Amino acid sequence: MIPRPLLPHIGGLPPGPRNAITDVAGVTVGHCTLDAQEVQTGVTVVRPHGGDLFRDRVPAAAVVLNGFGKSVGLVQVEELGVLETPIALTNTFSVASVATAQIRQCIVANPETGRSLPTVNPLVFECNDGFLNDIQRLAITGQHYLQACAQAGVDVEEGSVGAGRGMSSFGLKGGIGTASRRVPAASGGEHTVGALVLANYGKLPQLRLAGQALGAQLADRLAETSGPDADEAEKGSIILLIATDAPLDARQLRRLALRAGAGLARTGSVFGHGSGDIALAFSTAYTIPQQADAPMPALAMLHDGLIDGLFQAVADSTEQAIVHALCRARAVTGRNGHQRRALADLLPDWPGAVPQPTTNTP
Amino acid sequence: MIPRPLLPHIGGLPPGPRNAITDVAGVTVGHCTLDAQEVQTGVTVVRPHGGDLFRDRVPAAAVVLNGFGKSVGLVQVEELGVLETPIALTNTFSVASVATAQIRQCIVANPETGRSLPTVNPLVFECNDGFLNDIQRLAITGQHYLQACAQAGVDVEEGSVGAGRGMSSFGLKGGIGTASRRVPAASGGEHTVGALVLANYGKLPQLRLAGQALGAQLADRLAETSGPDADEAEKGSIILLIATDAPLDARQLRRLALRAGAGLARTGSVFGHGSGDIALAFSTAYTIPQQADAPMPALAMLHDGLIDGLFQAVADSTEQAIVHALCRARAVTGRNGHQRRALADLLPDWPGAVPQPTTNTP
Amino acid sequence: MIPRPLLPHIGGLPPGPRNAITDVAGVTVGHCTLDAQEVQTGVTVVRPHGGDLFRDRVPAAAVVLNGFGKSVGLVQVEELGVLETPIALTNTFSVASVATAQIRQCIVANPETGRSLPTVNPLVFECNDGFLNDIQRLAITGQHYLQACAQAGVDVEEGSVGAGRGMSSFGLKGGIGTASRRVPAASGGEHTVGALVLANYGKLPQLRLAGQALGAQLADRLAETSGPDADEAEKGSIILLIATDAPLDARQLRRLALRAGAGLARTGSVFGHGSGDIALAFSTAYTIPQQADAPMPALAMLHDGLIDGLFQAVADSTEQAIVHALCRARAVTGRNGHQRRALADLLPDWPGAVPQPTTNTP
Amino acid sequence: MIPRPLLPHIGGLPPGPRNAITDVAGVTVGHCTLDAQEVQTGVTVVRPHGGDLFRDRVPAAAVVLNGFGKSVGLVQVEELGVLETPIALTNTFSVASVATAQIRQCIVANPETGRSLPTVNPLVFECNDGFLNDIQRLAITGQHYLQACAQAGVDVEEGSVGAGRGMSSFGLKGGIGTASRRVPAASGGEHTVGALVLANYGKLPQLRLAGQALGAQLADRLAETSGPDADEAEKGSIILLIATDAPLDARQLRRLALRAGAGLARTGSVFGHGSGDIALAFSTAYTIPQQADAPMPALAMLHDGLIDGLFQAVADSTEQAIVHALCRARAVTGRNGHQRRALADLLPDWPGAVPQPTTNTP
Repeated sequence: MIPRPLLPHIGGLPPGPRNAITDVAGVTVGHCTLDAQEVQTGVTVVRPHGGDLFRDRVPAAAVVLNGFGKSVGLVQVEELGVLETPIALTNTFSVASVATAQIRQCIVANPETGRSLPTVNPLVFECNDGFLNDIQRLAITGQHYLQACAQAGVDVEEGSVGAGRGMSSFGLKGGIGTASRRVPAASGGEHTVGALVLANYGKLPQLRLAGQALGAQLADRLAETSGPDADEAEKGSIILLIATDAPLDARQLRRLALRAGAGLARTGSVFGHGSGDIALAFSTAYTIPQQADAPMPALAMLHDGLIDGLFQAVADSTEQAIVHALCRARAVTGRNGHQRRALADLLPDWPGAVPQPTTNTP
Repeated sequence: MIPRPLLPHIGGLPPGPRNAITDVAGVTVGHCTLDAQEVQTGVTVVRPHGGDLFRDRVPAAAVVLNGFGKSVGLVQVEELGVLETPIALTNTFSVASVATAQIRQCIVANPETGRSLPTVNPLVFECNDGFLNDIQRLAITGQHYLQACAQAGVDVEEGSVGAGRGMSSFGLKGGIGTASRRVPAASGGEHTVGALVLANYGKLPQLRLAGQALGAQLADRLAETSGPDADEAEKGSIILLIATDAPLDARQLRRLALRAGAGLARTGSVFGHGSGDIALAFSTAYTIPQQADAPMPALAMLHDGLIDGLFQAVADSTEQAIVHALCRARAVTGRNGHQRRALADLLPDWPGAVPQPTTNTP
Repeated sequence: MIPRPLLPHIGGLPPGPRNAITDVAGVTVGHCTLDAQEVQTGVTVVRPHGGDLFRDRVPAAAVVLNGFGKSVGLVQVEELGVLETPIALTNTFSVASVATAQIRQCIVANPETGRSLPTVNPLVFECNDGFLNDIQRLAITGQHYLQACAQAGVDVEEGSVGAGRGMSSFGLKGGIGTASRRVPAASGGEHTVGALVLANYGKLPQLRLAGQALGAQLADRLAETSGPDADEAEKGSIILLIATDAPLDARQLRRLALRAGAGLARTGSVFGHGSGDIALAFSTAYTIPQQADAPMPALAMLHDGLIDGLFQAVADSTEQAIVHALCRARAVTGRNGHQRRALADLLPDWPGAVPQPTTNTP
Repeated sequence: MIPRPLLPHIGGLPPGPRNAITDVAGVTVGHCTLDAQEVQTGVTVVRPHGGDLFRDRVPAAAVVLNGFGKSVGLVQVEELGVLETPIALTNTFSVASVATAQIRQCIVANPETGRSLPTVNPLVFECNDGFLNDIQRLAITGQHYLQACAQAGVDVEEGSVGAGRGMSSFGLKGGIGTASRRVPAASGGEHTVGALVLANYGKLPQLRLAGQALGAQLADRLAETSGPDADEAEKGSIILLIATDAPLDARQLRRLALRAGAGLARTGSVFGHGSGDIALAFSTAYTIPQQADAPMPALAMLHDGLIDGLFQAVADSTEQAIVHALCRARAVTGRNGHQRRALADLLPDWPGAVPQPTTNTP
């Protein structure tokens, strides 16, 4: 693993202690990784809090930057402004398995789900890992989702893990990255913003890494050392998850989610046609009870006039999370012998870019 | 079955020959119905044309009137303005099974789906039939979806069939209804608009049936003859599908979809909080090739200044389809002995409202 | 003036004491009416509270049912979820005059507007009264807006007054109407919902008045007694304003605004192509300070699970307000001798429909 | 004027011959500049074609990146997907004057506007130039708009001209900038994309100019040489106009408009809270007749699978236009002696950044 202190820091705001989305108190992340020849895929789960999200829902909002995507759950998030399950990430064709697992998980915890209680709204995001992974096998099962949930904690593994296992980015190995930023609060304390990305997007010549236009140079190096299928499959997508402990309502969280797009754009993305680029932001400052007779939270939201620091933190932590995803990803060989190189292998002279062994099971 | 000529006609536009969505040339509808004690559910499929929708996509757009719903596929419909699978309707917890079936169906027809071809966008709408159906069993499988596709034709069975099997509406038995209207075209011919609804919404006192405020009277009759659980579970939802042969682009189809909400409102709906009220409109006037190197259609769209007739046809055919759904639905007994009465049983004195035998398997 | 007790009551919820938007405590309405031969137009103002809205902003949200309209201010309402001026209604070509008057009014009260303070967001809605009014004269000045503000109070004149002076609806005289409904609150008290409409929409054959399909009959009567220009100019538009004292945030107010469309649809509208049908809802339960260093409100919003009563109240009060607008409007003769008949004149046998003298200045 | 060949070129696509929005055939741009002590403001007009836009409308769509803005006309653009006036840019408090001028201009050309013809939809964008300009004077009149129209041509002056006269950007002088890119077309020819920006946004420490993080250095230089009011008034806004000759419908143009946000983000913007960041894209490939009985265009739209080149061109030409705006703007002194320095003065060592004389009238 690349020691992160060597990687460039994006922007002027300080990170949290882990420089991860889990710096937002209560948030945990878990992975389940499948690594077996043709099957290079997985599930990643972000849990906004440790309780039952169906009963104690979290305010949230999403923005679709480019809708070439098959995520589920956004219709209800848009209407009600809440999450009611953990957020799951996986490959495109496994969305249904994971959504079903979320339904079953909710029924176990709340046996009247869909009967005297409303149905539950699964929330699953996806990218297409079909270059490295035999996506047509639909290899992900509900058990994998539950394993990711069970494994969730505050230490976040990055790169070619969980849903990131088979993902490609800029013609290189992509995957999971995370970061955080701290923002002074007007009231004297501070707010934390965390980002977690599933990076599976980008054309190499356009890559800007921490502000450096390294794409063209990397494309040359890649062409020298790789076979012709290396730049196949520019079918993109990136999922951008934002957490904060600032007290914001759904309208304000939608504003935050859009700023993940600013961080994404700085890396060279133009939100390509074939890419499902979707951002979702949630707040841990309060919960909204499922039951209408429970007391509603009565807290003051942040004034919109004080939101710019959070906007900056969203853009910076998103860009940082992408840098982490690219720099921490290790090379993977998968379906039909397809390979994705690690950025670190191609860029040994870049700060922190230490070449990495591939992690494929021999 | 109630002979339809006896049912009131909504509005001043004439229906097509079947008074069904299948009056739009090329459109077919199929059902698969599960009727076994606790399992009262099913799948309904609307096919915009008889070919491969992944290769020859149909322009479409959706409007979410109330987003308490778990439909899948709308993110991509919004971005690209096309359908690329048949439209499927089922119960809330079976969306995932049907979406997976659509993926597998596409892979069979297009083996490179998700590899050299893009992934496919499943399109599945749902309502919660948990009052009559044991929704927690997740009884629907991919096979049921395929059966509904195979059974698709121009004759549309209505009422307690397919996805409508377990649905409730206005505290009575709901389900599938369809209707159509013909609109003179400026060019001299005519356009056809068809609607198909999955009705699972409404509070009985608010019911207006073909303009008549029958709700209060029916509520009284129902209270006299039913047990206390009859008005349980006001968890709603209605799916409103609109087809037309008029040449419209996605922006215009979005305008049409919204007008289904006008037809819905006339029946007494206020798009209740717990209801997933979603309308989708598509046109059969042209297709958009999946492959970017295939020729794009070069036809003139309808001028927006000529669209009002279609708006009227959408509202009228939607309201008519709801009347058909309510009047054609037969009583069903399901989970825990829950019962939904047929409107026709409660309203024998209403034009066309002939009492119906229940259809439950003994 | 028609005594309102004679008019039919829509729905099952009771009205407030005035059956007007001003039943929501703090809301006032003022008109300025221009009635001089070719000039038949005006301004109507709805003030959410009696203070300075720029300093103490009111939560609000809008829904565009059909966007053939030239209203100003909605971009910022959508982003920030607040109003910061009174809401103004006028004719299409006078939006700019009124917006400028709102800017000047804000500068007078807050001299640093647009300097050390942000700019102010004018909020002006419009319909096209060009059939009766010589709209090309741009007759409205800032003074008329200020007069409407100064005249604002809790007693609301309806019909052919203020912005409603020159409006047409269903080929008859339209204009201003208002109504209210009271909804029991879970906490034991009650919430009030008020509606005010500027009605300038509709095709007569489609008219449903308080649930009765009177359109065709009225169209016949109108044809018997009117010249050929009577059904000219079906260029529509209706503005639907909703006030409530329930504690709702912008996301929830958007949900309320949409339900005004349900009330509108019940009257026979299909949100016609040429119509600017826009609904806006605001809450008086709290204000949001303009200054970021002022304390934000810390109150519990209504749980979404308790919102259905408000939805019903929005739809019912909107429909009632339209009934009031049509029944209280008096015949007007304007530009080129164009005339709009009063509904009451054509329908003397309808409850409460007492023939009215025209109000034109001789 | 800085010879543009010295300025850095953004991205890999070639510019058109003028590197301006007017490289899209038919598009012209005109300015009217007010420069008189306290009044430092103006109007800029972009004309999609030389004819009457009310009769021959141009397909268009807009995206609101941040809605702290007072632009008018977007409701109807969203609904109908067309422009029907030239696009006007001015200061925030002069939107109404310019909108009225557009209405009068349309009435002159089409005397039945608002009578037998529909009303016209003014389209005016704005930024707040209140730091340099006495915005409370409402100095812009309809005559200024007409002068900008009359002056429109293919040679586009940039910097502190027209609506850009009083604008600030990154604490420096902002204003008008334009650029273009050429994209190979699948059919063998090429498409042109042009951008024109009104830049009035940004915080200096965040500035990235053509990929270089020059903000911090510039902020130091500015602090050394400027008074304390230099960083006052961070009230932002940028208007981003995109033209193309590619055949696209409104849905596709909306996709293009969003990509202007990617170009904007690269310069260091996070779409700040107080900024009205709005992008609008239009196509000149065809027109849509105002009259419903005129023939509609019957041409093939570009396949969405071929749109990525245009996305890249939008982002690159937008970023380039911002570079042009900043580098071509000359220092201006205005209201209360407020000054904005020119980037070129602070950065004499930057390629192409030649110090410029101020242009204020002595």
